[in-house]
Amino acid sequence: MEREALRALLEEVRRGDVDPEAALARLNHLPFVETANARVDTHRALRHGLPEVVLGIGKTAEQVVEIAGALRRAEQPVLVTRVEPAAAEAILVRLPGGVYEAPGRLLWFGPAEVPIVGRGSIAVVTAGTADLPVAHEAIGVARRFGNKVESVFDVGVAGIHRLLHAAETLRAARVVIAVAGMEGALPSVVGGLVDRPVIAVPTSVGYGASFGGLAALLGMLTSCASNVSVVNIDNGFGAAYVATLVNRL
Amino acid sequence: MEREALRALLEEVRRGDVDPEAALARLNHLPFVETANARVDTHRALRHGLPEVVLGIGKTAEQVVEIAGALRRAEQPVLVTRVEPAAAEAILVRLPGGVYEAPGRLLWFGPAEVPIVGRGSIAVVTAGTADLPVAHEAIGVARRFGNKVESVFDVGVAGIHRLLHAAETLRAARVVIAVAGMEGALPSVVGGLVDRPVIAVPTSVGYGASFGGLAALLGMLTSCASNVSVVNIDNGFGAAYVATLVNRL
Amino acid sequence: MEREALRALLEEVRRGDVDPEAALARLNHLPFVETANARVDTHRALRHGLPEVVLGIGKTAEQVVEIAGALRRAEQPVLVTRVEPAAAEAILVRLPGGVYEAPGRLLWFGPAEVPIVGRGSIAVVTAGTADLPVAHEAIGVARRFGNKVESVFDVGVAGIHRLLHAAETLRAARVVIAVAGMEGALPSVVGGLVDRPVIAVPTSVGYGASFGGLAALLGMLTSCASNVSVVNIDNGFGAAYVATLVNRL
Amino acid sequence: MEREALRALLEEVRRGDVDPEAALARLNHLPFVETANARVDTHRALRHGLPEVVLGIGKTAEQVVEIAGALRRAEQPVLVTRVEPAAAEAILVRLPGGVYEAPGRLLWFGPAEVPIVGRGSIAVVTAGTADLPVAHEAIGVARRFGNKVESVFDVGVAGIHRLLHAAETLRAARVVIAVAGMEGALPSVVGGLVDRPVIAVPTSVGYGASFGGLAALLGMLTSCASNVSVVNIDNGFGAAYVATLVNRL
Amino acid sequence: MEREALRALLEEVRRGDVDPEAALARLNHLPFVETANARVDTHRALRHGLPEVVLGIGKTAEQVVEIAGALRRAEQPVLVTRVEPAAAEAILVRLPGGVYEAPGRLLWFGPAEVPIVGRGSIAVVTAGTADLPVAHEAIGVARRFGNKVESVFDVGVAGIHRLLHAAETLRAARVVIAVAGMEGALPSVVGGLVDRPVIAVPTSVGYGASFGGLAALLGMLTSCASNVSVVNIDNGFGAAYVATLVNRL
Amino acid sequence: MEREALRALLEEVRRGDVDPEAALARLNHLPFVETANARVDTHRALRHGLPEVVLGIGKTAEQVVEIAGALRRAEQPVLVTRVEPAAAEAILVRLPGGVYEAPGRLLWFGPAEVPIVGRGSIAVVTAGTADLPVAHEAIGVARRFGNKVESVFDVGVAGIHRLLHAAETLRAARVVIAVAGMEGALPSVVGGLVDRPVIAVPTSVGYGASFGGLAALLGMLTSCASNVSVVNIDNGFGAAYVATLVNRL
Amino acid sequence: MEREALRALLEEVRRGDVDPEAALARLNHLPFVETANARVDTHRALRHGLPEVVLGIGKTAEQVVEIAGALRRAEQPVLVTRVEPAAAEAILVRLPGGVYEAPGRLLWFGPAEVPIVGRGSIAVVTAGTADLPVAHEAIGVARRFGNKVESVFDVGVAGIHRLLHAAETLRAARVVIAVAGMEGALPSVVGGLVDRPVIAVPTSVGYGASFGGLAALLGMLTSCASNVSVVNIDNGFGAAYVATLVNRL
Amino acid sequence: MEREALRALLEEVRRGDVDPEAALARLNHLPFVETANARVDTHRALRHGLPEVVLGIGKTAEQVVEIAGALRRAEQPVLVTRVEPAAAEAILVRLPGGVYEAPGRLLWFGPAEVPIVGRGSIAVVTAGTADLPVAHEAIGVARRFGNKVESVFDVGVAGIHRLLHAAETLRAARVVIAVAGMEGALPSVVGGLVDRPVIAVPTSVGYGASFGGLAALLGMLTSCASNVSVVNIDNGFGAAYVATLVNRL
Repeated sequence: MEREALRALLEEVRRGDVDPEAALARLNHLPFVETANARVDTHRALRHGLPEVVLGIGKTAEQVVEIAGALRRAEQPVLVTRVEPAAAEAILVRLPGGVYEAPGRLLWFGPAEVPIVGRGSIAVVTAGTADLPVAHEAIGVARRFGNKVESVFDVGVAGIHRLLHAAETLRAARVVIAVAGMEGALPSVVGGLVDRPVIAVPTSVGYGASFGGLAALLGMLTSCASNVSVVNIDNGFGAAYVATLVNRL
Repeated sequence: MEREALRALLEEVRRGDVDPEAALARLNHLPFVETANARVDTHRALRHGLPEVVLGIGKTAEQVVEIAGALRRAEQPVLVTRVEPAAAEAILVRLPGGVYEAPGRLLWFGPAEVPIVGRGSIAVVTAGTADLPVAHEAIGVARRFGNKVESVFDVGVAGIHRLLHAAETLRAARVVIAVAGMEGALPSVVGGLVDRPVIAVPTSVGYGASFGGLAALLGMLTSCASNVSVVNIDNGFGAAYVATLVNRL
Repeated sequence: MEREALRALLEEVRRGDVDPEAALARLNHLPFVETANARVDTHRALRHGLPEVVLGIGKTAEQVVEIAGALRRAEQPVLVTRVEPAAAEAILVRLPGGVYEAPGRLLWFGPAEVPIVGRGSIAVVTAGTADLPVAHEAIGVARRFGNKVESVFDVGVAGIHRLLHAAETLRAARVVIAVAGMEGALPSVVGGLVDRPVIAVPTSVGYGASFGGLAALLGMLTSCASNVSVVNIDNGFGAAYVATLVNRL
Repeated sequence: MEREALRALLEEVRRGDVDPEAALARLNHLPFVETANARVDTHRALRHGLPEVVLGIGKTAEQVVEIAGALRRAEQPVLVTRVEPAAAEAILVRLPGGVYEAPGRLLWFGPAEVPIVGRGSIAVVTAGTADLPVAHEAIGVARRFGNKVESVFDVGVAGIHRLLHAAETLRAARVVIAVAGMEGALPSVVGGLVDRPVIAVPTSVGYGASFGGLAALLGMLTSCASNVSVVNIDNGFGAAYVATLVNRL
Repeated sequence: MEREALRALLEEVRRGDVDPEAALARLNHLPFVETANARVDTHRALRHGLPEVVLGIGKTAEQVVEIAGALRRAEQPVLVTRVEPAAAEAILVRLPGGVYEAPGRLLWFGPAEVPIVGRGSIAVVTAGTADLPVAHEAIGVARRFGNKVESVFDVGVAGIHRLLHAAETLRAARVVIAVAGMEGALPSVVGGLVDRPVIAVPTSVGYGASFGGLAALLGMLTSCASNVSVVNIDNGFGAAYVATLVNRL
Repeated sequence: MEREALRALLEEVRRGDVDPEAALARLNHLPFVETANARVDTHRALRHGLPEVVLGIGKTAEQVVEIAGALRRAEQPVLVTRVEPAAAEAILVRLPGGVYEAPGRLLWFGPAEVPIVGRGSIAVVTAGTADLPVAHEAIGVARRFGNKVESVFDVGVAGIHRLLHAAETLRAARVVIAVAGMEGALPSVVGGLVDRPVIAVPTSVGYGASFGGLAALLGMLTSCASNVSVVNIDNGFGAAYVATLVNRL
Repeated sequence: MEREALRALLEEVRRGDVDPEAALARLNHLPFVETANARVDTHRALRHGLPEVVLGIGKTAEQVVEIAGALRRAEQPVLVTRVEPAAAEAILVRLPGGVYEAPGRLLWFGPAEVPIVGRGSIAVVTAGTADLPVAHEAIGVARRFGNKVESVFDVGVAGIHRLLHAAETLRAARVVIAVAGMEGALPSVVGGLVDRPVIAVPTSVGYGASFGGLAALLGMLTSCASNVSVVNIDNGFGAAYVATLVNRL
Repeated sequence: MEREALRALLEEVRRGDVDPEAALARLNHLPFVETANARVDTHRALRHGLPEVVLGIGKTAEQVVEIAGALRRAEQPVLVTRVEPAAAEAILVRLPGGVYEAPGRLLWFGPAEVPIVGRGSIAVVTAGTADLPVAHEAIGVARRFGNKVESVFDVGVAGIHRLLHAAETLRAARVVIAVAGMEGALPSVVGGLVDRPVIAVPTSVGYGASFGGLAALLGMLTSCASNVSVVNIDNGFGAAYVATLVNRL
């Protein structure tokens, strides 16, 4: 609740323009709308100038339709993440008008073109081919959030010349998202190449001692590069969200 | 190696101003200086406009003196982190001229006043009294890196009114560092209060199922707030480093 | 074995009304009934005034029918938890007369209306939409156990105003069940808002570093709110059981 | 912030008795007092009718004195937990008037006798001699919180007759705290013997595969007794806190 | 290689009855037979007087047929463990003459009746219905290994009277196998009731913090009963094997 | 409580020789003696024909003196395990008459010579020199429990000929205790060499990925030898206890 | 970039044969070719004299075809690992000319016969039948890399004579690959039998406390044999790669 | 036991030159010498042409003196690893004639100069100053084992130019040992730079999420460079041992 709004309300009460009981009610009128199963925050997105995002994992198609529909009715753009193709189809049948981007498993309800509002570019760099779905989630989200995105794929550190070759692209970005599975060493090397914040995304790519992304996660947290911070395993969306905020500063 | 410097060198070779053998030697003249046990990178700090930082953990006082001394002789400011009081004393005897800040365990060799170059302020918020050493490391580093820092202490989420009371301070910052041990829930709530990037620092504060900071770390990585990224347990320095880069954008 | 029953039995033996051998047999007549594969405790439920509960996980439909059937023949109500829809159908074919509640995966054999015997209400609060199945298990069990239940859904801590909005509902309850996955921070904030016991239920909702509910579990165990105790991951039933006992005090 | 207080304040503003600016200031006057390093919540304890509690772990003697002193100056009773003997001595030198209870490592500033306000008794039961420090913390806290406490020591489940011998004491309590290390099986058996809530406290007692209390913790979380909930390893204080709230219902 | 056989061989060489080269060859003639993919030890079973056992996990039906067939051709009984129904059917088509015991997932090729050679009985006791498959594996193996087996099902420690009721059966056994999932407390209580070795089998029964049997495993390893030793999670076969050796002493 | 004793008591009640109230009291007279902090089971040891054992870990010298003193006053032999030299000295000053065996950290109060009652010998075999303290605990306990013990030291599997050299000693034993740290492979090889039960004791010997004995523990639990069961890390006492029971069969 | 090539280039620039801009371009001409989703390093294989290898895990058939096709068009042999039969079929339809080896899940595009270039033989030894797929991966890769391979199957350490029987084969090899699941003890014993480097491959074979290969992995890392180094769980390919490099020395 | 020696012995028996009993005794005369607490293998070292190595961890100074003394009396060189300065002093007092190398914590009894027998050089490369003790252990062991060693210190991957600068040194080696803590990314990058086997040594350097070297260990095991194999955390000795064997091929 903003201080200024509160001050104005109190002033209205003092002047007698607003009744104490009504003021109390208004104070309780918080910025969200309830559906049967969810409380959708319709103001945060407007406040941030960002579309509302619905995490698809752990939700049925019905729940996604319910939530996204409520937002669509409020004429807000909605981005649904982690939507498998079959689920996307089921959702689009009931809630038409969306676009499904298979590589990043994103379902978008909103304008075809999003104006660029980020002040620079975001570079998304990946270690291997198998990291692509997470990278595409980050890229797709960042674009829908109004950023210019550059991508550099398949530059794992065991072939360091491929990464060095891309150094200029990375250095030109305002913030870098580094996506890697297995040992997750990419952000450490990238962090040494650029003077910008690097957001590391461990992926669950790998087998055996990668333990579902744990090896990459621990590696990124203990990175010897000081400009690296980390988000959850496979969380391309979160990386894009943080990068968007940084890119708007 | 910068592209422009390389281009210039090649031009000099072409003009005959520089001999190929000499060019080869110069190409090898990479930007670091070797001491007996370390390769100190003297250029990165200058390039970033930041003092060089030496991590005190796992180094003997002798090694710190050797490395910091080399940098001091190069007339660079040096910040040593994680220095226990006894070690600080031992280092200062051999390498005078430094200032020890006990709360953040920082040893500083450089000008008494660092000019503010960050574009906004960094807010450092902590959950409990026991998180203070890590918070003070973040605060001390951020100040030596030229940032204005605001601090909000002891606002754990189980007394949510204390945190809400501080919301305006947090919202006024360009980037927020949230420091918490135990369940590490602070960054999630802070992340919902502000529209800026939040850098979460789990601390090893706690006992039992906190497992040396693991509970807080996992909690921050799985935060339901999308604007949170995470650094290593107790890594106040890393959080300040990332926040500094963000604050300079 | 109750002390009074034993005292009475001994008195009967002393008076010669009961033969020592018969007394021995009666002492062995412990309060359970054996089926082919299980020893069903038919007295505990009567003693507690609660229906018998059968955990559906790890049991075949045959085993559930065998156990629940034995209890039904003893004219006791039975509640089966964690029953997937297909299993419910298979069970109901062989043991008709039950009601399946899909949201909480509960199968109920007993009276349609259970009288309220709890002294106050139990509030069930959840962080996100994906926590609903566990919350519905807790709600369904609590109702079948004779409690008035209030529910507050989708009030994750990253949108703290939604939770504060519900504070009065929570404060009106005699005991609160807080259900959350991911970082599991909800019980810490709820614990600070109410002066009643809070029973925390971590859920396996989340991905990556949530490690199947481990992050939420550790977070709840190390909660900075002192009025929080914890049950197993996804254990909505256990939370409802403890809450029922508390609500009957 | 209580609704009634807010309503009253708004009424005063409406009547012109209070100026909007003054109202705003009062709204910000939240119920805590700041010291140099902490925000001490002076109202919660009064609201709950409980003494304020300071966790001694991770705090210096100076910090404890600062916080406890502020509360003492507000004429509130204070209980400091996890105080080792040497620390207790150092604190009592600077802040006289307290009593140190070595078995439970508790430091108490307040009346010698605390009136009983709990409605029944709390039973504290332990598995082995080595669990006593945690049990004594629970007992000491429960007594300072105004409860009648019964204790049953050294009744590990491998000698089940010792536990059965104590069954009546356990059944007479309104709530039971079960403290155990190693395999942590005690709460499961106790849970089957009583019809009341059982709060399980795993202890770090044991070696090898007990992994600092992890074995006991996991055992208690997966207990086959449905009336068991769990607090953090060695958290005798937390168990007493929850038990106190239950005992006041 | 037995010492006596070696001594005899050397004596034969000395007498000239055996040629050194032939002796060398015989020394290499070790007691196993090679199939395409396995080296089947045909002597160990004869030596122990036990049927050969083939672990079905991780083997294709083809591999089981190949190995069991080689043993059958050597006229040895064979017991295959962990055979799912479909695999059993596939094996029996190619290698007829076996009997499949579904409850214990055992496939037996050998005489219908195995003579009792164990000196006493083995008691198999389980905590819950869901532990039955592992218990049936132990029972089936122990019987095929020539033991008299008594079983006590569904006597979890939360209903301690059910277990006490069975105490005499347990005490009558020469060795006890205690099978339990979840918190795995059964062997601790059983261990206190009997004066014989107790072999504990943790099962993967449970959910959440049971972590696939880890909670039960750790609980059994840290048991406060001294007469308990532990085998791998779900390893009913191993428990029966050790119990057989003990029962033959 | 023995059935026969109960039957006799009931008969006495029937004959009027015993009053019901007195019978009730006697039923409660369970076989243990309470000290200030412990319930010492004085009957179990007599029943088993074994000395009472007190685990020294986690107990103060005072507590050990209290417990062992109570048992000594009951004229029972007592064995205290895990006693460091300084603690032993402190205990012996207050409770003279004991003998301290430094290699196994055992403190013995009882006859100098214990008669052999085991039917065969127990072999204790260790992988490396650093496993000796645990092996000596097993050896010392087994001897005080009336067993003949053979020991084979320093036969790690990387020098398999050393182990094969000792095969006859191992085969001559009735039960084998195999003690090993690091990868804990010894019991697997020993298990293949003997036809007797092998009790495996993982030790916390090692560094790095041995994780305090976890590597050895997991290795022993997943041993490919079927005659191996496992006790807790460093639990030489438990292994000797189980081996004693087996050796008495 | 080779030093000599650089020196030559600089000389050409000096002589005016090459323009600085052209030199700069050539310096950027790094040895890889980009496809839509990957940067294929076409030079490394040639440099090493090894076929290029594509890890099949985490790649769609489309991606494998794209990458392998690019390499085939460059007339290089390609080896694809971890290809399940259905995937192999899908790939071969679009990219004919390959050979699928089911036991090792390898797909080979290249000459039917690979000349032997390794200087000695590589021995691959396995503990159990279930380890065969990983062993076959190692064998297949080693053969395609030009090595002579000897294999010894099913020689687990619980039947040590089977392994000793194969000792000569192992000693004759230049480097040994030891593949084992469960407790992973095989490399320790093999390491003691041979004087050559042993590359240990833990497999995910086993159940329960093998935790997906973790037990074997930890066992191999803490091996008491000094000549053992370890690769990732199930990484038969990596073991063969390292063995190939060693065998070419 | 070598086949040839056995063949010769059998021939002697056949000729009657050796009595069967004497032959039997000789067959038992295995190549080790027993001290009070250890079986020292005096032949292995001679066979390998390597000094015997004693691991100092977990051994008392007395035990080291006993073992090393036995070897010295057999006129063999001995290398003791992991000897802290105080222990070294204590050992040298009782067993003079050794040299202590503090950086690598090595104690050497043998010739001052060891002749070079390795065929090429071993390169030891480290990521940070804190990794030096482990690197010095590897270097010292490799030198005492007769290798030429090149070392490259402080070339962590976050300053990739420092590592590239050293690429020629690394490429000139026959085998590379890469030592790194924290995220352990060094071997991945080194593995891409050289065509030789890389032996990775994770170190316990780091804090927080490095979990005592676990992060580095997992990172190295999941390295995307195929020529990397791994030894235990901090195991500089093991890396040098394997490298020595490789360097002698």
